Amino acid sequence: MLSPFLEQVRTRSPLIHNITNYVTANDCANLLLACGASPIMADDPQEVAEITAGCDGLVLNLGTLHTHTIPAMLSAGQTSYTLGHPVVLDPVGVGASALRTNAAHMLLDGVRFSVIRGNTSEVKALTLGASHSHGVDASGADTSEPLEQTLALAQTLARQRRTVVVVTGAVDVVADSNRAFLLRNGHPYLGRVTGTGCMLSALIGAYVAASPQQVLEATVAAVCAMGVCGEQAFARMGPQDGNGSYKTYLLDAVCTLTGADLERSANYEVR
Amino acid sequence: MLSPFLEQVRTRSPLIHNITNYVTANDCANLLLACGASPIMADDPQEVAEITAGCDGLVLNLGTLHTHTIPAMLSAGQTSYTLGHPVVLDPVGVGASALRTNAAHMLLDGVRFSVIRGNTSEVKALTLGASHSHGVDASGADTSEPLEQTLALAQTLARQRRTVVVVTGAVDVVADSNRAFLLRNGHPYLGRVTGTGCMLSALIGAYVAASPQQVLEATVAAVCAMGVCGEQAFARMGPQDGNGSYKTYLLDAVCTLTGADLERSANYEVR
Amino acid sequence: MLSPFLEQVRTRSPLIHNITNYVTANDCANLLLACGASPIMADDPQEVAEITAGCDGLVLNLGTLHTHTIPAMLSAGQTSYTLGHPVVLDPVGVGASALRTNAAHMLLDGVRFSVIRGNTSEVKALTLGASHSHGVDASGADTSEPLEQTLALAQTLARQRRTVVVVTGAVDVVADSNRAFLLRNGHPYLGRVTGTGCMLSALIGAYVAASPQQVLEATVAAVCAMGVCGEQAFARMGPQDGNGSYKTYLLDAVCTLTGADLERSANYEVR
Repeated sequence: MLSPFLEQVRTRSPLIHNITNYVTANDCANLLLACGASPIMADDPQEVAEITAGCDGLVLNLGTLHTHTIPAMLSAGQTSYTLGHPVVLDPVGVGASALRTNAAHMLLDGVRFSVIRGNTSEVKALTLGASHSHGVDASGADTSEPLEQTLALAQTLARQRRTVVVVTGAVDVVADSNRAFLLRNGHPYLGRVTGTGCMLSALIGAYVAASPQQVLEATVAAVCAMGVCGEQAFARMGPQDGNGSYKTYLLDAVCTLTGADLERSANYEVR
Repeated sequence: MLSPFLEQVRTRSPLIHNITNYVTANDCANLLLACGASPIMADDPQEVAEITAGCDGLVLNLGTLHTHTIPAMLSAGQTSYTLGHPVVLDPVGVGASALRTNAAHMLLDGVRFSVIRGNTSEVKALTLGASHSHGVDASGADTSEPLEQTLALAQTLARQRRTVVVVTGAVDVVADSNRAFLLRNGHPYLGRVTGTGCMLSALIGAYVAASPQQVLEATVAAVCAMGVCGEQAFARMGPQDGNGSYKTYLLDAVCTLTGADLERSANYEVR
Repeated sequence: MLSPFLEQVRTRSPLIHNITNYVTANDCANLLLACGASPIMADDPQEVAEITAGCDGLVLNLGTLHTHTIPAMLSAGQTSYTLGHPVVLDPVGVGASALRTNAAHMLLDGVRFSVIRGNTSEVKALTLGASHSHGVDASGADTSEPLEQTLALAQTLARQRRTVVVVTGAVDVVADSNRAFLLRNGHPYLGRVTGTGCMLSALIGAYVAASPQQVLEATVAAVCAMGVCGEQAFARMGPQDGNGSYKTYLLDAVCTLTGADLERSANYEVR
């Protein structure tokens, strides 16, 4: 079921517009090229509507958010939605500052998102307005909560905002208003590399832009693909390797992943 | 003929000022260190004239262009030209938005460039004011056009702006008002890594800053060097490698490239 | 003596707020994850006080300084100091422009730093107001000066600003008002990778945030750790490797470094 989504990305090579942070922009661009898509990063309010109109999908990422980028995100998000392009939100660090929380809620009110992806803290901050954020790469306190609660959280936000919600953690949850999936791929070492969440959001952008009629299923495929690549990258590590090599292996794995690999290794269940 | 230009970079270690994008800035800085030059990135309008005055060359790159960076580019470009330092323009994504196209034309009118490097789409947008842009890393439609047209395009812009023009593609064209070269190095895999065009522009900056009296020849040497390194990097790839490893191998190859390698592998002809 | 500081970072996993440049932000974030800490990058003046309040330490880095980031640095620095969090200053390129020199002095006057780390040029510009800067990654003229002068320079600034000062070079100097250490780890190849100075400042931030009662000793441990990792990374290089692979090996070494490695390889003396 999942491999056609991977193949669609390679066949259609969607161009993905990213309004994103300067910490992980390079890795997100290379991840998009790795999976078969093309990236463009542009965030000046004067050009984003025009840029996004020439693309197939849009990813908004709040890492290193700047006050002056918020209107650019709003403008690009609205243009993209009007044109029928999928829009993905990665609310990095939401809950950690009023600026980020307010920006995220303004975006949720002004843009119709196809997919929202965050960790438990971030999705809580969007849904309930409260969180225990610990940086942008991990949040131990929140990730250990019962899976059923995470599932309920994802479904609540999915219904509130009529969108697909991804909550990443030890088990990943993907849900829309009606259906939910639990995904058991990935590796804890993904948390040792900055921006693997941002990269996943970019990958989701590529998958849903290539299969815009099946947003939920394409999102499941993207999350499984990233998880399987995280496992393959770990399997390649030698005794001297650390997060430098792991990041390289992760990008390599996204390049070399086949549809057959994805079908064989994907581990998910419908709930 | 080409190896003296490579050696000049290592001997003189030119300091190159880059006003560039946040996606590929790290790779451009490491590329400059790899070839034997030194990088400095600075883009605040208040300091760029002072920074560039202490450098040997300047590279202006329009990727992730910001409205407030345009005056910085103009100021640094004029200072650099007045001091006799070579200035390179990389018009990333020009043609994809009015902001980029207008900024590029303002820079062309206000700064005398030593070298302009772009893909066919970008050089067309500078010369003719029209293009079919597909992101910043590739443009299939434009790259398949007849080589003679690309050559004519490069020479038109070279004469209009009294500069050296590089049009990169399957075959690279380097031309000034009087002469033209066709270069047949490189590997398609370079298109799978973001910013290899930005890196080439930075490399050209280093080569022309180290040999400012022979801008055309130094540019040919830089483009050949990057192409040969792209080939060497590909030759090193194993079955599990993808664009993560390829980027690493590319930087490695720029470090280890010898003058003899360059002479032996460079594949160019005068037209 | 040094390994407890390394262990404290892994045990406490301090969250480090970085206001830094876009060239090396990704490498600094991965370096922090490699050593066992967590990174957050945020620089909008509206959120930095709130972000830093939720962190354990702060690193201010002047690379790619922007006029609008200076108030953010001042605000975060004062908040962090008030809360008793260590604050590290990396005055990248100070002396190369009036903007950077003035910003650095404004920060020194407005914020009490735990540690200041720079190369000889940069520390001179902070102490004496004059330097011979050559880019941000190297300064040949200054690094060859007599060690006793570097030592005196470090101690002068340490006394002026009641802080720990690190001057990196062929021999690294770490000093406070009363004591000084000479450190003889590291490898010249570190200068072939952009941002190894920025990465060291981030590492110092992690070490002092994990051991805030022993800032001088924790700083010595961090500088030795980085130096030993630089040696280990070089030892791993093969004939085809250059600065691409070296950067990967450096991050790997920070991940895999043990307390025993550090004790065995650290080479320092009290002065």
